[in-house]
Amino acid sequence: MNATTARNSRIHVVVLGGGFAGLAACRRLDDPRVQVTLIDRQNHHLFQPLLYQVATAGLAAPDIAQPLRHIFSDQENVTTLMDDVKRVDLDARRVELGHGSPLTYDYLVIGLGARTGYFGHDEWIRHAPGLKTLAEATHLRRELLLAFERAETASDPAERDRLLNFVVVGGGPTGVETAGALAELARRVLVDDFRRIDPGRAHVHLIEAAPKLLTMFTPEQSDYTRRRLEKMGVTVHLNAPVSEVGKGYVVAGGKRFESSVTIWAAGVEGSPVTRTLAGAPLDRGGRVQVSPDLSLPGRREVFAAGDVVLLTDVNGVRVPGVAPAATQMGRHVAEQILADINQAERAAFAYRDKGSMATIGRSTAVAKVFGMHWTGLPAWLLWMSVHLVFLMGMRNRIGVFLSWIWSYCRWQRGARIIVDTREPVPDELVKR
Amino acid sequence: MNATTARNSRIHVVVLGGGFAGLAACRRLDDPRVQVTLIDRQNHHLFQPLLYQVATAGLAAPDIAQPLRHIFSDQENVTTLMDDVKRVDLDARRVELGHGSPLTYDYLVIGLGARTGYFGHDEWIRHAPGLKTLAEATHLRRELLLAFERAETASDPAERDRLLNFVVVGGGPTGVETAGALAELARRVLVDDFRRIDPGRAHVHLIEAAPKLLTMFTPEQSDYTRRRLEKMGVTVHLNAPVSEVGKGYVVAGGKRFESSVTIWAAGVEGSPVTRTLAGAPLDRGGRVQVSPDLSLPGRREVFAAGDVVLLTDVNGVRVPGVAPAATQMGRHVAEQILADINQAERAAFAYRDKGSMATIGRSTAVAKVFGMHWTGLPAWLLWMSVHLVFLMGMRNRIGVFLSWIWSYCRWQRGARIIVDTREPVPDELVKR
Repeated sequence: MNATTARNSRIHVVVLGGGFAGLAACRRLDDPRVQVTLIDRQNHHLFQPLLYQVATAGLAAPDIAQPLRHIFSDQENVTTLMDDVKRVDLDARRVELGHGSPLTYDYLVIGLGARTGYFGHDEWIRHAPGLKTLAEATHLRRELLLAFERAETASDPAERDRLLNFVVVGGGPTGVETAGALAELARRVLVDDFRRIDPGRAHVHLIEAAPKLLTMFTPEQSDYTRRRLEKMGVTVHLNAPVSEVGKGYVVAGGKRFESSVTIWAAGVEGSPVTRTLAGAPLDRGGRVQVSPDLSLPGRREVFAAGDVVLLTDVNGVRVPGVAPAATQMGRHVAEQILADINQAERAAFAYRDKGSMATIGRSTAVAKVFGMHWTGLPAWLLWMSVHLVFLMGMRNRIGVFLSWIWSYCRWQRGARIIVDTREPVPDELVKR
Repeated sequence: MNATTARNSRIHVVVLGGGFAGLAACRRLDDPRVQVTLIDRQNHHLFQPLLYQVATAGLAAPDIAQPLRHIFSDQENVTTLMDDVKRVDLDARRVELGHGSPLTYDYLVIGLGARTGYFGHDEWIRHAPGLKTLAEATHLRRELLLAFERAETASDPAERDRLLNFVVVGGGPTGVETAGALAELARRVLVDDFRRIDPGRAHVHLIEAAPKLLTMFTPEQSDYTRRRLEKMGVTVHLNAPVSEVGKGYVVAGGKRFESSVTIWAAGVEGSPVTRTLAGAPLDRGGRVQVSPDLSLPGRREVFAAGDVVLLTDVNGVRVPGVAPAATQMGRHVAEQILADINQAERAAFAYRDKGSMATIGRSTAVAKVFGMHWTGLPAWLLWMSVHLVFLMGMRNRIGVFLSWIWSYCRWQRGARIIVDTREPVPDELVKR
């Protein structure tokens, strides 16, 4: 067969993970000399920055996801496989999969991302799920909406009060955004819809171990964020490291917080697949330490990119775990592979910081871009525009934009739906 | 407390079920002399006629659902409780709930709807889920999309072929609509997105026990439907009653069909709660037989409305299990309660048939309305307009309308997302 012959004479690049890094690598490898196989255990690319809006009933799950194979519909040299990566055999240059036959590669790109980290307390996951996948976000949406429903049916007033306590752990962008969206959900969106309870009396606690929120922003912006959140009804607890998480409670900074739903946005660690990379240098969290060109030390044909990487770049900048950094790394890796093919020199990766932003709530956000520090409405409009531009697919952009306009004008959220009322099976829930 | 006093002096109507019947009853009971408690085990009203589009990845779950308590946000006399109805004690006039305290009533409206019926073979549910709830629709969407993904990763060609066989049981509107949407998904939407399989070679079988599809339509329309479906790639099997359903296969009309996903759209039966109505006359399927005014014989304070009812109306018309009939019954029940309060006479229910319609695929449908029989594009445009008008909530209307336009112009579907890749636990799945 011609196709097979053509394929066999091409360089075969296997890309693990269809996040920002994997996607950028695949796109940049649109070259007839290269055959790409993209593996992801999900069938979609997920726009993680808006995941908190799925969890807080603002957006539907499909709004922020795009089928991976549809993204590469027109790029003939990419084959997408939905499969689990079981193990990577670096010596045999082979990837072992959960369903399909093993794949051998000429080049391997590891873009498996990060998962929620619990600082060695993996048992906490059962009581405090993270916010990294659509399954987690829709699970949290269900738990949050159910808490209000259960409070409305509860006959015991103490039980009602208990059900309306929510704890968000972690004062980074995800924690801030989730806490803000949750406070608005209770105080504005739901406020007229109940007869027996007052959803506005819900308590949202945001817990952070450090002395300030959003450590990557200026002290003024961190302080602005705290004040805005408190005005919106969030109680912010700084210098409060979590020491215990159990069913219905969190202990942090020596204080015990009742919590009917706890959301963990406090730490990340590398994908567990990295543990199978015999000989690759990992940090404690399982993230891969790479050479300046993003290849594994001593393995020129294996690269890592995105949140799975721990890297201080050639300019001495610690590369943050954000979408633009992952995209830049993915593209850089593809360029090194093409450089090899063209018998050109490889280059060291240099991170270009385009800025950071975090939304707090309606009409308010903080941003550091173009060398300037923004707060309030301008930052919020900037945040919305940037997120719409980087969201994949015109259909999703239109859908999210309309949802936002609708929410803004009507104080409503379109995804206040509990899809599945059956109790989840705990062990299924925490399978990682 | 004033509220309690006012409430106690009002007539308390308990409405079981927030489907079309329950919703219509609650709305018509917007009267200061009445206090309404609406119980549903879901937190939303579901627009079931579009459920097949959620199952076939055309719409997101929140697009066709509306939170019940939000619907009654402005109707102060309605309290909405999300709870399971465990048992109705007709003598004590009491409803027992899964979570909350029991409720006593002056009037009871049973609008619990129908669930999928398996003609006495409840064990088939495990292999052939129905299409009545969002949980079922999102489960089917997952199974359908996974079948294509698994076929793409499969190394055995026989396994690939097997995975691309789908069986829809039941040639009524839901079966026809699902089979048509599934054929279009495989042959048009997915066709360019795979590299190893040709999704266009998927087999969709539509199986019906009767000698024609859509029995409520004219023979010409039934025949038109069959021909259109076959042109779209659906293989229609008439006179083929199902005798066996197992993992991966269906036996019907003496023939065995391989099936990686089987969808059951063949029968309905009443809610199991009706079995707790001691003394109420039920048919074999658990549906309630009511007096002409829709009250239970000998129980003037208990009414039933919607799909849970088995009724030949005052004009000798057998009332069908469709949304307009449920709405008319719900409204009629509310009017009888108000008639009692006004010390007026009760009236017998008379069904006003507004027509029927079923969509087949892109630009093609059949309809019987205004005394005329429509097929093709005019019927399809009529079908779309009517469904948009009856869909609850302007936000959902806009969202669904845009999804349809996008699908029409781009041959795409916006909800091709597998939210949860973890295997469902079989016993959780079939819990009813």
